[in-house]
Amino acid sequence: MKIIRNLFFLFPIFILISIHSLTFNNLFSQPRLLQDSYLTIAKAITDTALADAQAYSMLKALCYDIGPRLCGSPQAAAAVEWSRQTMMKLGLENVHLQPVIVPHWERGKIAEATIINSTIVGTVPISIAALGGSVATPEMGIVAEVIEVQSLKEAASLGQKAQGKIIFYNRPMNPKTMNTFAAYGNAVDQRTLGVIEAAKVGALAVLVRSATTRLDKVPHTGLMQYDENVPRIPAAAISTVDAELLSKLIQQEKNVRVRLRLDCQRYPNIESANVIGEIVGTEKPDEVILIGGHLDSWDVGHGAHDDGAGCVQAIESLRLIKVLGLKPKRTIRAVMFMCEEFGIYGGPAYADSIRKSGLKHIAAIEADRGGFAPRGFGVSADAKIVKKIKEWEYLFEAMEAANIFQGGGGPDISPLNEMGTVTIGLMVDYHRYFDYHHSANDVFEAVNERELELGAAAMAILAYVLAMEGVE
Amino acid sequence: MKIIRNLFFLFPIFILISIHSLTFNNLFSQPRLLQDSYLTIAKAITDTALADAQAYSMLKALCYDIGPRLCGSPQAAAAVEWSRQTMMKLGLENVHLQPVIVPHWERGKIAEATIINSTIVGTVPISIAALGGSVATPEMGIVAEVIEVQSLKEAASLGQKAQGKIIFYNRPMNPKTMNTFAAYGNAVDQRTLGVIEAAKVGALAVLVRSATTRLDKVPHTGLMQYDENVPRIPAAAISTVDAELLSKLIQQEKNVRVRLRLDCQRYPNIESANVIGEIVGTEKPDEVILIGGHLDSWDVGHGAHDDGAGCVQAIESLRLIKVLGLKPKRTIRAVMFMCEEFGIYGGPAYADSIRKSGLKHIAAIEADRGGFAPRGFGVSADAKIVKKIKEWEYLFEAMEAANIFQGGGGPDISPLNEMGTVTIGLMVDYHRYFDYHHSANDVFEAVNERELELGAAAMAILAYVLAMEGVE
Repeated sequence: MKIIRNLFFLFPIFILISIHSLTFNNLFSQPRLLQDSYLTIAKAITDTALADAQAYSMLKALCYDIGPRLCGSPQAAAAVEWSRQTMMKLGLENVHLQPVIVPHWERGKIAEATIINSTIVGTVPISIAALGGSVATPEMGIVAEVIEVQSLKEAASLGQKAQGKIIFYNRPMNPKTMNTFAAYGNAVDQRTLGVIEAAKVGALAVLVRSATTRLDKVPHTGLMQYDENVPRIPAAAISTVDAELLSKLIQQEKNVRVRLRLDCQRYPNIESANVIGEIVGTEKPDEVILIGGHLDSWDVGHGAHDDGAGCVQAIESLRLIKVLGLKPKRTIRAVMFMCEEFGIYGGPAYADSIRKSGLKHIAAIEADRGGFAPRGFGVSADAKIVKKIKEWEYLFEAMEAANIFQGGGGPDISPLNEMGTVTIGLMVDYHRYFDYHHSANDVFEAVNERELELGAAAMAILAYVLAMEGVE
Repeated sequence: MKIIRNLFFLFPIFILISIHSLTFNNLFSQPRLLQDSYLTIAKAITDTALADAQAYSMLKALCYDIGPRLCGSPQAAAAVEWSRQTMMKLGLENVHLQPVIVPHWERGKIAEATIINSTIVGTVPISIAALGGSVATPEMGIVAEVIEVQSLKEAASLGQKAQGKIIFYNRPMNPKTMNTFAAYGNAVDQRTLGVIEAAKVGALAVLVRSATTRLDKVPHTGLMQYDENVPRIPAAAISTVDAELLSKLIQQEKNVRVRLRLDCQRYPNIESANVIGEIVGTEKPDEVILIGGHLDSWDVGHGAHDDGAGCVQAIESLRLIKVLGLKPKRTIRAVMFMCEEFGIYGGPAYADSIRKSGLKHIAAIEADRGGFAPRGFGVSADAKIVKKIKEWEYLFEAMEAANIFQGGGGPDISPLNEMGTVTIGLMVDYHRYFDYHHSANDVFEAVNERELELGAAAMAILAYVLAMEGVE
């Protein structure tokens, strides 16, 4: 009855219902009492999240006081310190940093592309952004004819024809694919690997259609990879509006030429950090439920949805549990992972430390799909464990997120899964994510307060019940 | 097999699956074939909506070429003509206008409120908008002390103390209420009826906290009512940020005074119109499935979510059915209702005409909750009919809108319900609606293309199946 006493002042009506159930109907029925308690707690968490809106306030601070947090940047360092201080102020325990060596690349000041010889539109600038990790162009830029392709395979098949050209990958995300993450997955190879295929056939540079279903005027950046056996050529994302324009011109004219200038640059790796804080469990402090997001972001917006949202939701989850006086049996730990965007460094570094310390991680929940309304959880675990967690769906009915299914996690926690931890991804509405993703559109104002808070509440509820019940 | 043939070129894979099911598994099983066909059609409708995005294009035109469409305004007249022309261009049948006599009120050019004597903040303007139907203040404005209340009852209880004062209704929408429409319903009496209670106790004017859960700087307007036996005093919505400020000042200072100036004005009623267009049924042309939204809006934003979205979704539904070559047995009719916001005129006028003509209306679907992701349908009908419609939930699983339940409809179609028509409301995500509702925030950019299109697809699917199957 400890929990119920703690909540007494906050939720008299629910407690009365619980007591009524206990006294008259279910005196000897522990499961029902437990169920009533968890429902009461879930409602308390949700109400507090919606009324206090502290995740939203934290996100505003992260977006406006710190700004975008490109891995290796001063702002990323500021975000580490901001997270540490925020966790300290909220009274979390064992707040500390965990060193992570991360890449350091800077976008520079120049990202220019111009169609220079169109008989239809003349000389027009097009909106681009260097892909993460790209080398610069020569200072005077690259001027070359543009060849449009729809796939890596088509690029490879160009052979000699690609020599000295700019290859333009223009396969759109399929708007008919209901889940936009699936559509993204089917388009993003152009951005990640396109530059390798292009360099193999002698291209001078690469333009890639932004990965969004929208027609908009801002480039959506993201990481690209080089192959050490292939020349490194520059690569940039082009806005979908300009991709459409460029494609039309190529269809109608011969030899459409573009001048491309980038001054981005790679620097030696530097030290950054994951930020960790927790509520120590009352009975099994050495068993951990982890919740987290990634603190770094791209540098072209605020990184509000990706993944400021996940970070503040994780911190807010612990705040909600604390402010309600809940005492989880197992430790609940928030981790702000550093450098997901630039190749996933913080997650593996964290997993390495756990491999060494042997600290038991029961489950890990990651939020990295934007601060949209929660719809459920994807769980990577044995069928038996998924079944057990699925039994808690009723706790998420009120917020319309009662959908727990097999399969899920997140890039930062997936190394833990290989070590036996149950990994869980917060699933949210997915139609809007790629409107903002990796672009100047991903700003604080694109996040809805209620949706963000409900995501935090969902994570807090699941983390708390996991900390009480375990997964066995 | 007629439908399947018509779709053959568009969806060969799905057709093959259907034929396979028919040939090998379900040769004599008509229901399964039907189910396969409807699923194929639902997917075709959804794919086409997502790929074409014509609802989104139409909404852009309605928002930018026409603009806000206050009942009785030239823009409302333009919207009527735009709807008629749009329906004609899409090849809808029997496109016509139905006259509706509507109120005519104009906001004017002056909506000023200023805190004039605060020792803390000095003289500061506050952001207001006249409530719809309000009388003007005297030209020099009203200057009076502000008394804050939380309810109509508290206003009534002021008695003599209210004499010569401005009454300020400041009860917020409850952020803990999960469904924001319920929270709105529990707060909006202050806006609709507050002015009557205030006038009864001798107040000079009314300020009402905007009905939104957000703290924002724009007033959210809306309709208010006068009582013919009570003096008509001016009333305005105040932004939530300024409501918080005003409330704090009132708590900390005595006699906080505001100057209020409005030059809004009522004019004689004028004639406007509902706009109607349809696809005539092949077998039962005299049985109608109605889909619609309201064409008028408030005048402070674009009226994009409220209810430009519902209007273009209704037109898009018919376009989708037409472009796919579907031939509904019963008539599917889109109705753009005129003047919902200013007291619901178009709906009753439509119902009156149906009462006279006797044209059988099987079912009516209204979309008036914003262009957000569809989540299901609320159905007002006998349990048996609801059960039948609920059996079609599987058609909405792909878009995560498989939730059909008892209770729903909309303000424009509710008079039809009284005449035996099954009335159905499109239910959508509700967390964001009141961020925009009746304010300058309700602009085209606040609508997500995919969410809008999926709503249109949901309506098209349900309208088509209703037209094929009826409700008995």
